[in-house]
Amino acid sequence: MYQDPLHASQYGGANPQLAAPLRVGLLGLGTVGGGTYAVLQRNAALIAARAGRRIEVRRVAVRNLARARSVLGEAVGHGIQLSDDALSVVQAPDIDVVVETIGGTGTARSLVLQAIAHGKHVVTANKALLAEHGTEIFAAAQAHGVVVAYEGAVAVSIPIIKALREGLSANRIEWVAGIINGTSNFILSAMRDEGLSFADALAQAQALGYAEADPALDVQGGDAAHKLSLLAANAFGTPPLFAQVQVQGIDKLDALDVEFARQLGYSVKLLGIAKRCGPALELRVHPTLLPHNHLLAQVHGSMNAVMVKSDAAGTTLYYGAGAGAEQTGSAVVADLVDLARSQCVAPTQRVPALAFQPSALAALPVRSSDETSSAFYLRLDLERADTTVPRVLQQLAQDGVCVEHMQLFEHPGDAALHCLVLRTAPLCLGNLHAALETLQAWPTVLGFASVLRIEMLD
Amino acid sequence: MYQDPLHASQYGGANPQLAAPLRVGLLGLGTVGGGTYAVLQRNAALIAARAGRRIEVRRVAVRNLARARSVLGEAVGHGIQLSDDALSVVQAPDIDVVVETIGGTGTARSLVLQAIAHGKHVVTANKALLAEHGTEIFAAAQAHGVVVAYEGAVAVSIPIIKALREGLSANRIEWVAGIINGTSNFILSAMRDEGLSFADALAQAQALGYAEADPALDVQGGDAAHKLSLLAANAFGTPPLFAQVQVQGIDKLDALDVEFARQLGYSVKLLGIAKRCGPALELRVHPTLLPHNHLLAQVHGSMNAVMVKSDAAGTTLYYGAGAGAEQTGSAVVADLVDLARSQCVAPTQRVPALAFQPSALAALPVRSSDETSSAFYLRLDLERADTTVPRVLQQLAQDGVCVEHMQLFEHPGDAALHCLVLRTAPLCLGNLHAALETLQAWPTVLGFASVLRIEMLD
Repeated sequence: MYQDPLHASQYGGANPQLAAPLRVGLLGLGTVGGGTYAVLQRNAALIAARAGRRIEVRRVAVRNLARARSVLGEAVGHGIQLSDDALSVVQAPDIDVVVETIGGTGTARSLVLQAIAHGKHVVTANKALLAEHGTEIFAAAQAHGVVVAYEGAVAVSIPIIKALREGLSANRIEWVAGIINGTSNFILSAMRDEGLSFADALAQAQALGYAEADPALDVQGGDAAHKLSLLAANAFGTPPLFAQVQVQGIDKLDALDVEFARQLGYSVKLLGIAKRCGPALELRVHPTLLPHNHLLAQVHGSMNAVMVKSDAAGTTLYYGAGAGAEQTGSAVVADLVDLARSQCVAPTQRVPALAFQPSALAALPVRSSDETSSAFYLRLDLERADTTVPRVLQQLAQDGVCVEHMQLFEHPGDAALHCLVLRTAPLCLGNLHAALETLQAWPTVLGFASVLRIEMLD
Repeated sequence: MYQDPLHASQYGGANPQLAAPLRVGLLGLGTVGGGTYAVLQRNAALIAARAGRRIEVRRVAVRNLARARSVLGEAVGHGIQLSDDALSVVQAPDIDVVVETIGGTGTARSLVLQAIAHGKHVVTANKALLAEHGTEIFAAAQAHGVVVAYEGAVAVSIPIIKALREGLSANRIEWVAGIINGTSNFILSAMRDEGLSFADALAQAQALGYAEADPALDVQGGDAAHKLSLLAANAFGTPPLFAQVQVQGIDKLDALDVEFARQLGYSVKLLGIAKRCGPALELRVHPTLLPHNHLLAQVHGSMNAVMVKSDAAGTTLYYGAGAGAEQTGSAVVADLVDLARSQCVAPTQRVPALAFQPSALAALPVRSSDETSSAFYLRLDLERADTTVPRVLQQLAQDGVCVEHMQLFEHPGDAALHCLVLRTAPLCLGNLHAALETLQAWPTVLGFASVLRIEMLD
């Protein structure tokens, strides 16, 4: 007989077809923990109708018990045991899955390893933890036959880990490129649309809650690098190679370049790019000029998007919110539904943690920034532009830098100066640097204001 | 020890860690069958490194044996048995999975049911088959404990079924809206960008291979309706409700309206929209005006994209090729990898065919076109616009149609006429029709040239 899955009331009572519930121990009840709990509560019946069994939070560990009581309400003592001892939760015999939402790489690491050692599956959205300690954690999970799931760790609301691990499993992936830090994208959107400086755009982002009081991890690119190392691992069958990601944030970006780029037909985006180049990989996070009409250039505000180029599927793109309590909760609960369906499945029949069978993972060599080729946007601030520009172009040509486009702008801050903006043909950053060193010695060239990569991603 | 998964040579030899291969029987070797075979061959080692075992095509059934021999080459007789008897393949004891790429709803249906009856899992990209006979086929699969997988049936290269069934399993889905017919999108892009008529754009699409000789299923919306009924099933927990989808194609679309819409800030897209409205659903396929800056309006040519609005994840979007041999092969092989990983898993531990447990599926009531509310674009061709326009607006207001925007254009084909273009506030089509009937009787109103829905999808 058909039932209506849209109406939770129909699932309120006992359903003999549903198996025993999946019992969750929740570590932390902050943004991610609270969002996860809220989604599990509100959509409990709907989730059970999909998963085939209920998913129930049985234990919650937090530091601030009073605050947790206000969130959990009457559930404390009636179904949920609340504690300030996280270790007791990861060791509890009545817990099937530990959801880690504490954050950081210290306590979280040791609790996750303890949970694994006690035979618990683990769900986490902690990108730093897995990017930096993933090899250790996934090995421990394999040894104990449990799952460590982490859909929420990258571009939270977007099921991109599932797309790479499962949806695109037929493909040889060529590259993955994504806007995977919402804070930076919000700031870049404001710089471009409102002409703000980085500092003013950051202040606006902080006032609106899109940036934290200490924005370093976001605006300096570290957070994107964490996520990129997980994307690359799943795309190319490597362990997380976080330490080898070349990282440049948006904190040094000049509003002048955002504006010149706009006039030249480009949007500046902080991209994480993982690319296969013969036997090596490129792993890089940097502000990137993208043509205005590129789909990734249409991703505004704090939204995220990941584009994947692969040999059979071609280009696919995945777009959604990159932050938020319930947005992350959506991903955490999706991992829990996967576990509810497959809790008793043999480890060899599961989707491997990093898409490839552990025996097939390879720590591929990663190219240095200097070896990595792309087109470049250059801005040089010049005196006496009339005579200097031809000499600059001549010298660059002599040093093997092919200039495909040049445009001269008046310097908005100094009437005696011009800004020479150049687009080069693709070349290695190392070669470009060598050529720029010569120019840097000229008295009419007042420093190299900007060197930014241009990517076509087609 | 780490191996390099990027280099197939490392997987050429026997790998003791890999279990017995998944044995595939392939029905048909046309576009989809050929693309599937090509991907399986080229990426065999990579796929095995992900799936944990090899996926091997053991039997192929085709009508044209000579053509198949030229595709399969030396594999015939060396690993692959070629036959023109499809029934022998679906009954063969040495086959684990039948991949149906024959198409249509006749032979394909009976072969799929035969395969299920013989305990074979089935993978298909046949949207017509599942939209029209899905209830029968999924019930048979459940009765025999086998899987019917169909990622390739909707927006081929995009893992949208997986996103709905698994990635968004925590969510109450509010609506799904997609560009899910590449032929129509190609034609609409050409009408808009090159100012072509529907007939000329169709001819161009046919010349370039984006439209078939008989384009009816594509341009009249039937193909999109097939796909929409599968998307809606997975989003809302219904059986495929193909017969209840309201369908309007692009074949009656006037180039004049595409151009006026462009000037008013809209792109015309053929959308499939499935929406929850209280206890009922809306299921509709029609040309739709979308604001230029909407992400779906950025989907050009033959590409597909599906946007999903859900309560926890918010808005997510999935983009990729909507047709093509290897693009479809990518999806078919992803289904095979899922099966390679989970072949021996108990049916209750699998992802259900339509996202929800079979006992939770509900044939929700579907609203009629007249009951479905949206804003509308109206074009009326008028004589004596100076006096007629105020009277039209007055009459519409009197009949409860709130006009939010009006613009008068000269009629490009008749100097005596004007085109009055109106945008209404949201109302039900039924109410709009009633109001238009009054106007239709006026001698200065020369017919209602166009009534098109406007959607904001935000």
